[in-house]
Amino acid sequence: MITAATPSAQVQAAPYAARVGMAGAGQLARMTFQAAADLDVRMQVLAGTADDAAVRAGAPYRLGPPDDLAALRTIARSADVLTLDHEHVPIQVLERLVADGHVVRPGPRAVRLAADKLHARRDLQAAGFPVPRFAEVHDVAGVAALAERTGWPVVVKARGGGYDGRGVHVVRDVHEAAAVLAAGGAWLAEEHVDLGSEVSVLLARRPGGETAVYPLAETTQVDGICRELTLPALLDPQLELDARELGIAIAEHAGVCGVAAIELFVTTGGGLLVGELAVRPHNSGHATIEACRTSQFHNHLRGILDWPLGDPGLRVPAAAMVNVLGAGDGRTTSRLPRALAVPGAAVHLYGKAERAGRKLGHVTATGPDPQAALQIARAAASELQGA
Amino acid sequence: MITAATPSAQVQAAPYAARVGMAGAGQLARMTFQAAADLDVRMQVLAGTADDAAVRAGAPYRLGPPDDLAALRTIARSADVLTLDHEHVPIQVLERLVADGHVVRPGPRAVRLAADKLHARRDLQAAGFPVPRFAEVHDVAGVAALAERTGWPVVVKARGGGYDGRGVHVVRDVHEAAAVLAAGGAWLAEEHVDLGSEVSVLLARRPGGETAVYPLAETTQVDGICRELTLPALLDPQLELDARELGIAIAEHAGVCGVAAIELFVTTGGGLLVGELAVRPHNSGHATIEACRTSQFHNHLRGILDWPLGDPGLRVPAAAMVNVLGAGDGRTTSRLPRALAVPGAAVHLYGKAERAGRKLGHVTATGPDPQAALQIARAAASELQGA
Repeated sequence: MITAATPSAQVQAAPYAARVGMAGAGQLARMTFQAAADLDVRMQVLAGTADDAAVRAGAPYRLGPPDDLAALRTIARSADVLTLDHEHVPIQVLERLVADGHVVRPGPRAVRLAADKLHARRDLQAAGFPVPRFAEVHDVAGVAALAERTGWPVVVKARGGGYDGRGVHVVRDVHEAAAVLAAGGAWLAEEHVDLGSEVSVLLARRPGGETAVYPLAETTQVDGICRELTLPALLDPQLELDARELGIAIAEHAGVCGVAAIELFVTTGGGLLVGELAVRPHNSGHATIEACRTSQFHNHLRGILDWPLGDPGLRVPAAAMVNVLGAGDGRTTSRLPRALAVPGAAVHLYGKAERAGRKLGHVTATGPDPQAALQIARAAASELQGA
Repeated sequence: MITAATPSAQVQAAPYAARVGMAGAGQLARMTFQAAADLDVRMQVLAGTADDAAVRAGAPYRLGPPDDLAALRTIARSADVLTLDHEHVPIQVLERLVADGHVVRPGPRAVRLAADKLHARRDLQAAGFPVPRFAEVHDVAGVAALAERTGWPVVVKARGGGYDGRGVHVVRDVHEAAAVLAAGGAWLAEEHVDLGSEVSVLLARRPGGETAVYPLAETTQVDGICRELTLPALLDPQLELDARELGIAIAEHAGVCGVAAIELFVTTGGGLLVGELAVRPHNSGHATIEACRTSQFHNHLRGILDWPLGDPGLRVPAAAMVNVLGAGDGRTTSRLPRALAVPGAAVHLYGKAERAGRKLGHVTATGPDPQAALQIARAAASELQGA
């Protein structure tokens, strides 16, 4: 006797709790899409290709480049809120969507602070936030002039567009600077900070200002790419307090809505300097899926939808996350069972085509302390990377 | 400068780590689909309607009733493994798919034990497992004959197809029995067990027999529907050991592959009797998403794909889950923000159209002890139910 096997045939489809559009369809969109199902949020993405990570995970999509105003308008028209998984939508396009009456969260002002590194340095410095010494540079002489003040090496950065270390170059002299600038484009140079550590202040914010701050995470970057993260960061309590307050103040200043990550440099002298700002779910928040009462992806949706934010506190004593980078042999996915054999590792693959050094996934582990968790996450990531 | 915004356009799409087909597209398929993205598993479902929970969450699908051999064949042909989110696929259809050479996990033998309650009672009794006293009944006289041995009330159950208490009736006398049997169909009657508590042994199993057993959960049923669950169950250690061993032995006997839940009655005398058997992710395992190192949905996929199983251990001291049932006023989804305002509650909505008493979602909370977590989960579920 088969009873009521297709019960929903008898009743009308339920309305969604909310509809969100997202520009971008990478791994951040993919994981936000996974979280959206919990909240019965329909989420449509603007994808570059039908193979993009979020599309592969089942997200409804439209194809188009990040500056495709027509596609974004179509997505926005069927959404309560339009949001972003990257900072590549031109500010003028976002402003146009806002002018059309669409709800764009975060808004253009916050996105510009994340997208335009020179603007961010100037704006945050003018607002009194501690930033590394920097200068707009048009030529090698400009880089050399900064180095006069700060000493070599100097960091030369593309003004916009870069991510995962693209467009970020540590140059040791004018010859190296010249080689970088030869590529053309708009650049800034800034002092190379002598780092004690790097921490990420991850938070979520609602339009009214309610803010949920995650426990601070310590990140390890290699070649400008976040490679590893431990949670919580083991900092001096006063420094931790200062870092949280600095992160909150910057998020307020930027008018962030949804999740933002403020990367901070802890100098060897124990001071804090603002690194990069992201106004979307961030690599430094992936461990929140397993480690926190509310993941950054759930809280991004809750923030942009103006719903009560979820508790960002840890469920566990500690956690660690290690990114999985493509080994370049095309066999990362086929090594998945080996990584799954590492006890306690939570593997996340993004379904992305492999390229050497490309972020293909991450591994999170939780445990009694950050280092114990890190060992597990590293072991599983190494298996995937064939190391 | 926009660099590499659509990187996947330049490279070939990656192959999936694996492909799974699933008969059924309800909330279990939906949550399995959410987990599938972590493992880069493509999962296609057989759905009754395009509004089914898993389809709404983005799962690729084919439409058809559970006995649609042609549709199941099409799904199986593009999958490494075919699995199930319910027990409504007729055993002959499963056997036909196996004869065709498709990999069906769990196999027909295990599914029959979950689908046919009379067969399960007979088979498990013959194998020496402790089951309540029961009898196949064709008429009121049969029910009365069982009651002669066990006393009233007696439980009259539809032999197959029922779930969430459908087809399960506690009858106090021959008149009530007659009213139930008047509906027609195949029935069994069994003794009404005087319950101390009910526990669920949730486990995952690979084809070779490797088994991961979750911490025992205590369930509270109302009208045959699982309403609440606390994790871990606080049992006498010997009883807990006995329950685990009984669950493992039944799973082995049934040849389970993937996740199974063995519901056990703990009698007031402290004995164990086998209740229902499910050979798929189960309501009693939803809290594993937040509470355990590996969720039941991830482990179901890992089990059926013959990948190393994930650690089923708790990440947290304790957890609780409360189902969200439709209030019947059509406003459950609109009350979501109120539920999200309950600190620490992890809300999962299934996107199902509302009907009074229908399972529309669940809430999980984790905490220092099961009762503390239960209070949080209850509070959020009550908000959704408008209570």
